[in-house]
Amino acid sequence: MFQTFEVASNPEQGPPRLAALRGALGPAGLGGFIVPRADAHRGEYVAPADARLAWLTGFTGSAGFAVVLDETAAIFVDGRYRVQVRSEVDPVFAPVDWPETSLADWLIAHAPAGAVIGFDPWLHSAGEIAKLREALEKEGIALKPAPNLVDGLWEDRPAPPAAPFFAQPEELAGESAADKRARLAGELREAGQRAALLTLPDSIAWLLNIRGRDIERNPVPHAFALLHDDARVELFCGPGKADAVADHLGPEVAILPADGLVAALQDLDGPVRYDPASAPERLAEALGDRGVEGPDPCLLPKAIKNPVEIAGMRVAHLRDGAAMVRFLAWLDAEAPKGGLTETAVVRELEAFRRATNALEDISFETICGAGEHGAIVHYRVNEKTDRSVRPGELLLVDSGGQYRDGTTDITRTIAVGPPPEGAAEAYTAVLRGMVALSRARFPKGVTGAHLDALARFPLWLKGMDYDHGTGHGVGAYLSVHEGPQRFSRTSHDIALEPGMVLSNEPGHYREGAYGIRIENLVVVEEAEALPTSDPGRMHLSFETLTFVPFDRRLILAEVMAPDERAWIDSYHAEVLDRIGPQVDGAAKDWLEAACAPL
Amino acid sequence: MFQTFEVASNPEQGPPRLAALRGALGPAGLGGFIVPRADAHRGEYVAPADARLAWLTGFTGSAGFAVVLDETAAIFVDGRYRVQVRSEVDPVFAPVDWPETSLADWLIAHAPAGAVIGFDPWLHSAGEIAKLREALEKEGIALKPAPNLVDGLWEDRPAPPAAPFFAQPEELAGESAADKRARLAGELREAGQRAALLTLPDSIAWLLNIRGRDIERNPVPHAFALLHDDARVELFCGPGKADAVADHLGPEVAILPADGLVAALQDLDGPVRYDPASAPERLAEALGDRGVEGPDPCLLPKAIKNPVEIAGMRVAHLRDGAAMVRFLAWLDAEAPKGGLTETAVVRELEAFRRATNALEDISFETICGAGEHGAIVHYRVNEKTDRSVRPGELLLVDSGGQYRDGTTDITRTIAVGPPPEGAAEAYTAVLRGMVALSRARFPKGVTGAHLDALARFPLWLKGMDYDHGTGHGVGAYLSVHEGPQRFSRTSHDIALEPGMVLSNEPGHYREGAYGIRIENLVVVEEAEALPTSDPGRMHLSFETLTFVPFDRRLILAEVMAPDERAWIDSYHAEVLDRIGPQVDGAAKDWLEAACAPL
Repeated sequence: MFQTFEVASNPEQGPPRLAALRGALGPAGLGGFIVPRADAHRGEYVAPADARLAWLTGFTGSAGFAVVLDETAAIFVDGRYRVQVRSEVDPVFAPVDWPETSLADWLIAHAPAGAVIGFDPWLHSAGEIAKLREALEKEGIALKPAPNLVDGLWEDRPAPPAAPFFAQPEELAGESAADKRARLAGELREAGQRAALLTLPDSIAWLLNIRGRDIERNPVPHAFALLHDDARVELFCGPGKADAVADHLGPEVAILPADGLVAALQDLDGPVRYDPASAPERLAEALGDRGVEGPDPCLLPKAIKNPVEIAGMRVAHLRDGAAMVRFLAWLDAEAPKGGLTETAVVRELEAFRRATNALEDISFETICGAGEHGAIVHYRVNEKTDRSVRPGELLLVDSGGQYRDGTTDITRTIAVGPPPEGAAEAYTAVLRGMVALSRARFPKGVTGAHLDALARFPLWLKGMDYDHGTGHGVGAYLSVHEGPQRFSRTSHDIALEPGMVLSNEPGHYREGAYGIRIENLVVVEEAEALPTSDPGRMHLSFETLTFVPFDRRLILAEVMAPDERAWIDSYHAEVLDRIGPQVDGAAKDWLEAACAPL
Repeated sequence: MFQTFEVASNPEQGPPRLAALRGALGPAGLGGFIVPRADAHRGEYVAPADARLAWLTGFTGSAGFAVVLDETAAIFVDGRYRVQVRSEVDPVFAPVDWPETSLADWLIAHAPAGAVIGFDPWLHSAGEIAKLREALEKEGIALKPAPNLVDGLWEDRPAPPAAPFFAQPEELAGESAADKRARLAGELREAGQRAALLTLPDSIAWLLNIRGRDIERNPVPHAFALLHDDARVELFCGPGKADAVADHLGPEVAILPADGLVAALQDLDGPVRYDPASAPERLAEALGDRGVEGPDPCLLPKAIKNPVEIAGMRVAHLRDGAAMVRFLAWLDAEAPKGGLTETAVVRELEAFRRATNALEDISFETICGAGEHGAIVHYRVNEKTDRSVRPGELLLVDSGGQYRDGTTDITRTIAVGPPPEGAAEAYTAVLRGMVALSRARFPKGVTGAHLDALARFPLWLKGMDYDHGTGHGVGAYLSVHEGPQRFSRTSHDIALEPGMVLSNEPGHYREGAYGIRIENLVVVEEAEALPTSDPGRMHLSFETLTFVPFDRRLILAEVMAPDERAWIDSYHAEVLDRIGPQVDGAAKDWLEAACAPL
């Protein structure tokens, strides 16, 4: 079982640890210290050794930070975690609404004039520190890099992750690492740059066709790398971690000890590109004026999947789809009896995925929210919150699998017994938005900001909306949340390009009652010309990767346009066609009924 | 009759005038000269005295510029004018696709190293010159302000416009000029600015509640103004032009001669705000380092209409709608007979608007395109292009009126006899897009870039699209094209706010066959909560201002969703309700039939 349900947090440890940290401030010559949730690689998950924020405060969310001053301490969390932080964290850490209140503004209001605030320069990006320093210095507050005070107090701190890396073979990666290195080195030469610093594990994984097991859920290797303009790479990692992939990496990739990185940067001829959004301040500082800012060169090529990666994603989704269909058939048989709990549902779903014999990990903690829990957008069930799934409720299940050939992410919302008042109307609006975005054709140059409204429009018409983006990029056996493309009103700088994979997941949340979300993954492709197409006009469109039925019991077919109904019928026919041969017995019967025309 | 149909351009004058201009380059110490279409006020229309580009080249389009070098000359026009420029301009001026090729790139390719290129600093904005200078100077090409060489050659140049200004009374403007001046002066004080330079006639018209007749179609006063931080205004204009409004302006507005502006700027204490997007380079230079860049302070308050202006727009649209209904009823009776020409249609439409006894001007040259002319997005009929309207064709009519209480802009596409193959399918897609945008509800913060796709989506699904924006801002008895808000993919910096008026005008153009466009004006408003609304969620929505039926003969009702059909039926019922009482006889009969439920 990958997912666990224990209550990880213990608020009572907060006050003594806060006191100990305060005791360390003076000797370090600091008036305060910042403890972020991030590690040096800025992923969504951190290793146990890097869970400093949870150690100090008890907070287990995936984003946020604490600040400790002599007299005050605060924990900054975003809208997802405003309820959770109160149950996990002792009030000695005052919760602050972030990003509404910025760290700079809070420090200006709370730190005494002349204060020196310490930070660990490995755990903050260069861009973050530059912005913070600019805001603080004019107010007379200094920022000072310092050894991590938490590490000095944390007695039983786990060892850093040491899992060996392994190869992602070219038949799954679709392009050799040598070709990728040569392609990106050419871009560096064109930009007049001698090298690029890579600090994001999934960038390094993509470039070198390797994977790792250093953290949960994301199969990435914890390492840093330098890509030189002659296509050589220096890979900096913990002892022995890359031994098993040395042959795979070949002679143009040097494996070096992680603690040699700073010295290597200090010796390097410039200009060296680093991404201020992700490179740790410590490394930017080591580059000094030989460093030039620029996006991580792997970001866009990694986002644009090649045909082999797309083929792998298709296969992974058909495998995952069959597991989901078996799960949904089981759920429809069991849930109306009234005895299921949320944790039981999560366990059973993971078991169906494990039964594929191909599951490497789940791609994130399954969100399984019955009734009012469905309205908590990032709900993660634990032993304390677990509740039974009762007839007359909706059940929202957002989950995914990591397979060697691809990463999945799917949400379905299921009516258990007769649906609550208004639920079918809202479900139909969510579905119409999901379908509109799935069907969209659009010209090149269009971004996620331009398409986001298509998914919201049917909800907007009813006075509804959802307070999250419509979709995120997804990796190919990499992180389930991957940039730079998104379906979001703020994403107006990254045009959608063929090969990009995104989630399409509008929702509706009625607090205290139910949540609805429907999510498929799609991949951008060149659209074929239609008989009605304008002469010479080229469009892009989406191929749907996910094949699992929607809940027909929640669909009000009569409010839809004929072409919307036709899309759903055609999708269901394709689901039956593709998933049907993989299932039998009760699951097959269930699937046939679920895929009947509206 | 406001609109005229004579062929204004004579390509034969181009070569001798080009030769004369070249003769003037050497004595002026220049290697080239730029002749823009714009005047110092950067409006869409220019006075005859400012039509320098047309005088030199013959080109009559509303945007573009010529560059004359010793050996080469070019005329830069955008996508709207690539066909027109070839019929209006002698090939001694090579047509250049703009903005694909920038002026800087063209000069770098064609001007000799060390060349000095002259320009009239009144006719180019400060921002334009700064950008051009930056691109050219590193290539060794100098830009030099100079007296206008065209003015020195143009013997029968008309006198500059001298029409007297007149007041827009507070019962139409909705806010006294004194209150507007005080409001904006407060903003200047908050920004620490002593004054703001106003160079846009519609900004000055809005601020001072005056109008003018200096150019066609836009009822604006040609003037410059300085708004001081104590709410005083200095108005710089031609002799006698403001005499009639001196009392209306009151003692806090000083009327000064136009030629005193530069000296006034040179004497002013800074900082003085000027808008680099519109202020002439000459004036920014006069301010020197006392000038600070910032948006024209009138832009946003002018765009956000007050309740009185919105009420005026409603009345103007009902009046204009009745004229349109009489026109459409007449057209349906006459056009199928086959004898009508495009010019006859334009004349008749203007006559119906004049018959309201309230028409001050048309708001732009009516676009009346029969058959294949409908596919030319900015088609303007003249004696040479005029053709008859034949049964079996579509007729596209885009027109508007200037009334004291408001400005209108409406497009209807009419089937004359049986519609061409495919036309109803395309018309229905255009209409579905127009209806979707009209019905939209959306949160605060949404921009035109976020909503643009709603209007295009039904066309995209058919492989169609249109190569123009979906809509523009509209003034209240001011310019029919007004910023800063737009429905356009590039408009992601200006959030829609209650009171903003926009056009909603998707289209479809089949070259050589027909054009379809449907346009209503809408005004942003706070949306009322619905029974299904999320608790606490606020939305904005659009109130439709235009009330004229769509052509039911082109609507395929069976492809639409029930809520789309219901919107159209409800709109038509409202048209009948609001316009019906204003018409009688055949027009009333026609309106009743046109407004019957689908």
